[in-house]
Amino acid sequence: MDQLNTRYAAVRKHTLALAEPLSDEDCGAQSMPDASPIKWHLAHTTWFFETFILERMERDFVSFHPAFRILFNSYYNGIGEKHPRPQRGLLTRPGMAQVRAYRADVDARIARLLDSAPGAELDMLLTLGIQHEQQHQELMLTDVKHLLAQSILRPAYMEIPLPPASAVAPLDWLAFEGGLTEIGYDGTGFSFDNELPRHKQYVAPFALASRLVTNGEYLDFINAGGYFNAALWLAEGWDWVRTQNLKAPIYWFQDEQGAWQEFTLHGPQPLDLNRPLTHISLFEADAYAHWAGARLPTEAEWEYAAARAAIDSGALHPAGAGAGAAGGLAQMYGHCWQWTSSSYAPYPGFAAAEGALGEYNGKFMLNQYVLRGSSCATPPGHARISYRNFFPAGARWQFTGIRLARR
Amino acid sequence: MDQLNTRYAAVRKHTLALAEPLSDEDCGAQSMPDASPIKWHLAHTTWFFETFILERMERDFVSFHPAFRILFNSYYNGIGEKHPRPQRGLLTRPGMAQVRAYRADVDARIARLLDSAPGAELDMLLTLGIQHEQQHQELMLTDVKHLLAQSILRPAYMEIPLPPASAVAPLDWLAFEGGLTEIGYDGTGFSFDNELPRHKQYVAPFALASRLVTNGEYLDFINAGGYFNAALWLAEGWDWVRTQNLKAPIYWFQDEQGAWQEFTLHGPQPLDLNRPLTHISLFEADAYAHWAGARLPTEAEWEYAAARAAIDSGALHPAGAGAGAAGGLAQMYGHCWQWTSSSYAPYPGFAAAEGALGEYNGKFMLNQYVLRGSSCATPPGHARISYRNFFPAGARWQFTGIRLARR
Amino acid sequence: MDQLNTRYAAVRKHTLALAEPLSDEDCGAQSMPDASPIKWHLAHTTWFFETFILERMERDFVSFHPAFRILFNSYYNGIGEKHPRPQRGLLTRPGMAQVRAYRADVDARIARLLDSAPGAELDMLLTLGIQHEQQHQELMLTDVKHLLAQSILRPAYMEIPLPPASAVAPLDWLAFEGGLTEIGYDGTGFSFDNELPRHKQYVAPFALASRLVTNGEYLDFINAGGYFNAALWLAEGWDWVRTQNLKAPIYWFQDEQGAWQEFTLHGPQPLDLNRPLTHISLFEADAYAHWAGARLPTEAEWEYAAARAAIDSGALHPAGAGAGAAGGLAQMYGHCWQWTSSSYAPYPGFAAAEGALGEYNGKFMLNQYVLRGSSCATPPGHARISYRNFFPAGARWQFTGIRLARR
Amino acid sequence: MDQLNTRYAAVRKHTLALAEPLSDEDCGAQSMPDASPIKWHLAHTTWFFETFILERMERDFVSFHPAFRILFNSYYNGIGEKHPRPQRGLLTRPGMAQVRAYRADVDARIARLLDSAPGAELDMLLTLGIQHEQQHQELMLTDVKHLLAQSILRPAYMEIPLPPASAVAPLDWLAFEGGLTEIGYDGTGFSFDNELPRHKQYVAPFALASRLVTNGEYLDFINAGGYFNAALWLAEGWDWVRTQNLKAPIYWFQDEQGAWQEFTLHGPQPLDLNRPLTHISLFEADAYAHWAGARLPTEAEWEYAAARAAIDSGALHPAGAGAGAAGGLAQMYGHCWQWTSSSYAPYPGFAAAEGALGEYNGKFMLNQYVLRGSSCATPPGHARISYRNFFPAGARWQFTGIRLARR
Repeated sequence: MDQLNTRYAAVRKHTLALAEPLSDEDCGAQSMPDASPIKWHLAHTTWFFETFILERMERDFVSFHPAFRILFNSYYNGIGEKHPRPQRGLLTRPGMAQVRAYRADVDARIARLLDSAPGAELDMLLTLGIQHEQQHQELMLTDVKHLLAQSILRPAYMEIPLPPASAVAPLDWLAFEGGLTEIGYDGTGFSFDNELPRHKQYVAPFALASRLVTNGEYLDFINAGGYFNAALWLAEGWDWVRTQNLKAPIYWFQDEQGAWQEFTLHGPQPLDLNRPLTHISLFEADAYAHWAGARLPTEAEWEYAAARAAIDSGALHPAGAGAGAAGGLAQMYGHCWQWTSSSYAPYPGFAAAEGALGEYNGKFMLNQYVLRGSSCATPPGHARISYRNFFPAGARWQFTGIRLARR
Repeated sequence: MDQLNTRYAAVRKHTLALAEPLSDEDCGAQSMPDASPIKWHLAHTTWFFETFILERMERDFVSFHPAFRILFNSYYNGIGEKHPRPQRGLLTRPGMAQVRAYRADVDARIARLLDSAPGAELDMLLTLGIQHEQQHQELMLTDVKHLLAQSILRPAYMEIPLPPASAVAPLDWLAFEGGLTEIGYDGTGFSFDNELPRHKQYVAPFALASRLVTNGEYLDFINAGGYFNAALWLAEGWDWVRTQNLKAPIYWFQDEQGAWQEFTLHGPQPLDLNRPLTHISLFEADAYAHWAGARLPTEAEWEYAAARAAIDSGALHPAGAGAGAAGGLAQMYGHCWQWTSSSYAPYPGFAAAEGALGEYNGKFMLNQYVLRGSSCATPPGHARISYRNFFPAGARWQFTGIRLARR
Repeated sequence: MDQLNTRYAAVRKHTLALAEPLSDEDCGAQSMPDASPIKWHLAHTTWFFETFILERMERDFVSFHPAFRILFNSYYNGIGEKHPRPQRGLLTRPGMAQVRAYRADVDARIARLLDSAPGAELDMLLTLGIQHEQQHQELMLTDVKHLLAQSILRPAYMEIPLPPASAVAPLDWLAFEGGLTEIGYDGTGFSFDNELPRHKQYVAPFALASRLVTNGEYLDFINAGGYFNAALWLAEGWDWVRTQNLKAPIYWFQDEQGAWQEFTLHGPQPLDLNRPLTHISLFEADAYAHWAGARLPTEAEWEYAAARAAIDSGALHPAGAGAGAAGGLAQMYGHCWQWTSSSYAPYPGFAAAEGALGEYNGKFMLNQYVLRGSSCATPPGHARISYRNFFPAGARWQFTGIRLARR
Repeated sequence: MDQLNTRYAAVRKHTLALAEPLSDEDCGAQSMPDASPIKWHLAHTTWFFETFILERMERDFVSFHPAFRILFNSYYNGIGEKHPRPQRGLLTRPGMAQVRAYRADVDARIARLLDSAPGAELDMLLTLGIQHEQQHQELMLTDVKHLLAQSILRPAYMEIPLPPASAVAPLDWLAFEGGLTEIGYDGTGFSFDNELPRHKQYVAPFALASRLVTNGEYLDFINAGGYFNAALWLAEGWDWVRTQNLKAPIYWFQDEQGAWQEFTLHGPQPLDLNRPLTHISLFEADAYAHWAGARLPTEAEWEYAAARAAIDSGALHPAGAGAGAAGGLAQMYGHCWQWTSSSYAPYPGFAAAEGALGEYNGKFMLNQYVLRGSSCATPPGHARISYRNFFPAGARWQFTGIRLARR
């Protein structure tokens, strides 16, 4: 419990630290309905502890502010009304100072509760809340990156220069035998409900790329006319590309001399051909794989391989895969989430929790695709081999990349 | 080959027969982008034979009309330009008479080709064209049903009365052991590429409902407030229901006395509680299953069970499952396509054909869900155990129903 | 009354004649929400007589078909429910045969009513119905032109060749003194309520162009980059042009050799530089005038000039203004409706009729602009000097042209 | 010139004072595309002086920040690229501190220019910039009111309580004779180009209401079913009302007991029946007038009457018209802008300025309607009798009210 208390404090503090480089103005804006303001993240993660722990377990519970129950509810119909998601950027009140006070108040009450009424349920809910907050830590970085990219000023989140990537090793193919195997969380610690139950799957023999696809390799795809060749794309992807007239990943742009640049949290940078490609949609990942004569792995293949191969591991921007990766799977964690071809679906025997917490994962299991691994923005210690991230096929603002597979 | 010739002639004739009860005006209209005019179906199925057979194999090929290459191309980017899908209803020219002449011309040339240049490739392409036309035969019925439903006149496609359904047997659960199994087409005849290759899958023990969900059972769900209970729905389904303010299946309506009616191809009918529920989206199917304490089957479960259980089989509207179904799986074919929870994805090792024909199936394998079985509108002999139908989760104008599964 | 009977019969017959060159299929389609199917025009004009005359004045009135009251009501809230405007093309039932029977039935009953119960109110309503039907005659031609233009076949409504235009006279400026004047209908015959009451307006001195702007003159504007010069356009017009990436009038297109063609009711034709420009929006008219150093006239200026100048007058496509126009105002009627800068607003003292007929004009007096004159599609005898046609600034499918004005 | 210097300083200071009650977060958000963030107003008004004065007249001009030329250009195509209007709320950089520094820098340079290079052109441009800034002062109040209304917290801009309105005088009708008259700016001081040239218009005899319509009178309209009676509305207004399911003015709401409240810049207030109705669209104004057996005045009528009648005049919320108004026109200025039925159009002989400044008014003269008078948010001394404000018919976030007219 003591350890949990320490972990709670550390994670909560880290969330505030992520907002440190930003002004109050930066923290209030919302660049698209899929993203949220930093302030909203700060408040919503606090709301999670208040609603699912304090409200249930604190004697004589009184909410910090009655309107916050509505303002900072993300998507829990079981809790009641919600402020409309696309209008989170209009909540100039409460201000950052009041949201910080909200965090401090809930933190103090959680600490008291841990002292006065320890127990397994509290531990479980606190652990869930911590994991939930870590998920939002990653979103804070991707959401603010999207916001900063909207202005021609293209300001950096962090003024520290981005070191050059080391030269990239050639792409190797690691062969796996497959067979009847098991995937899903296997242990006694924490996992999300979507990783359970561990269950059998049959995996046919396959090979996995030793590292992620690089910017350089993707530039070849662009230069070969990849964005204009219908034969490479899923039908919905082709509509998506043509309707928006897309020609490159979301944060790539050409300067006045035509040289490719990439907007990063460190500001615009000349495109580093050795770095892993990131911020691409499943549509782009699938088209690239098609062009490269390969395919995306399934999530079972990914997990099977990750359990068996030597793996090395991850800054706020993906780094190059050096020579050290030879003989194993490089860049599985800590660089880019890796799109799989697997639809996000319940594992056989999946059961959501009762009540509003059951809305955490299960109701999103449709028209989304699984990503495996973790990214440079994932908090250390958060991800694991059975972790299932998921986004719609057109999502590009996450640190998403490509690991190829083939027969 | 003689047999193929006969089969070709029979299928082509049946397509025209389906248009018989309709006026030329009925045949020209398009009620929504997802549906096509009857005339367009008549022409497009002919275009398929002209483009993929005559153009490739006929000596000194001259097109029937050069503009038809564009006007009646559905989605084959490899063939070139296409008339915009949502504007198919604006093609008042060519008229029905010219489209009938187009059919007759292509039929005569196909017959000559079969005589003069028989061979395996021609057989293969002709078989594909016949299967393709049968798929459009089903769409002709569902598309015209949707069109006729748009007017307050609610005219019948067929004036023949719909016989009452027999009393329905109680729903039984058939248990299956599962294990490492194989699914996919297994034979030497025709299958679509999406049924291949046959491959191993592990299926955990499960039970399947002996029959489809009935109108009566679904009415219980409605009366229990199913359309207004967020907890039963997938997140995207809940948005879908609330945005459109849906309260019942698409063709259900209440008369002035409040009695439920169902619009059918035989015109409006009092809702028959014994008939299978049909014309529901995956969203509705999933919410109903949730409410009923069950779930939808996976496509592997469906195929596994269909291969092992006694099955009976299929009018232009689903019929009731009588007592005869006891001890086996009733209504697997010939009543309603059955939603599965399986995302439409390539089987391991799937390879699309080269060229434009490779666009037939593969490029649609995203954000769609598999339906198994067949419906009252499926041409006899068209479906098989490994057949994979697929639609987006919100599609309601097909003859879609619910077969429940559980652990 | 006898004369009215004859006029009624002639106008009703002419409406049917306009549908003669078309198939039943052509008559059913609707190319955009602003346009209606020919069949709908045939039925709605009949509905007008049935609803506003027979229902009010026929003893023991029984409707031809009860559903037609809803199906063929255009916009009269006072009458009740309406079939949704954008879905008029989905009304494949009733078919053309039944609509022709509807027309014949109402015509016979109107004839009987004229015999049995003549009177001033009947005369007034019959006259209004005849004028209403003439307005729809023009819309039938512009709506079917828009429909036929949607297909790459670009079929002709009328196979008769379009004669070449005569050489065009130079554009003269006719000066008018202005002063306190009166506009509005001045007579004892029929006018629409929007032409009343005749009232005083002060008109400053101005000059009006002797003829319409030609295709050749407008081509100069295009070649001078007119569609890409923001400074020439109203703000809303510039958004309109750029959002739709417009570069020419709606029915102009370039053939494979780059030569300009114009789609007409006689089919595609090489662009005739001597013909009046037609099918342009107010946005385009205003930008052209700006570029030409002129402006559009107000409706008071147009009417003032038309009352004082020598005027000549009108085929199914605008013709050239020959030398004969010198010394007067050519092409005022029978070629193209002429955009004015006047917002469509009630004249001082305007009063709409009581009841549903009061919805005829008044409720549309907002965000529309007045056009004066008449077009090649206007039935002879329909227009007059005080006639006010009106459309939103972006409308292009009418026979609309430009007459310039200046100080 | 000294006086202009003083006036410049006072107006610039007042703009900053309007932002005083707000946090930096409040100043950054944009609640809808039609509104702008306070920070953007602060910067754009500064950009106006920098671009149209310093850039033209300052020797060795260097911009404060090159990107500001794009970021803070509102709609001047002649100046070049613009940051997209709907995304002004995403400009978290520059922050408020930098925008304040921008203001101070430009203010200092303007002061130097006035000292070093005085002259008529500078005076003219400076006067225009001051008037422009005053227009934005009003928008700052209406834009921030709209923003604050988006949250369930409904915070007040100003915590000072709103005094109760005095009892309202009965509505009198003041008759005017009309005749050939002149409207438009008549003087040697400043006016906007849209008020020129002064010109003749004929005005028929009419009567004008002695005061604005009150909340109490409009509540009668609501209670009489005004929002549900199609016969009262313009066609476009009826679509607008029904599509959005509107039932009351934008800032009216009912508390849990059903009592009407009005959101104001002083926070929510019980609806004061004596206050003038405000924040209504032209659609609502026109429907109310129709219901009340009256109409809206034309702008010529309004100006004619304002020039001839006794007028009294105007807090941050409209006040009641007390007994003192008897015998004259109360509430003409300083309460609510008054919708007229006049389309915003150029006066005869209107000529826009050359270059980018010509985009100030002229290009917006379409599909907008004129409002006359001024509101409680208009800076003192800004409006005048010939002043023409204008908005689209659906705009509700301005302080707009109703003054009735009749024959």
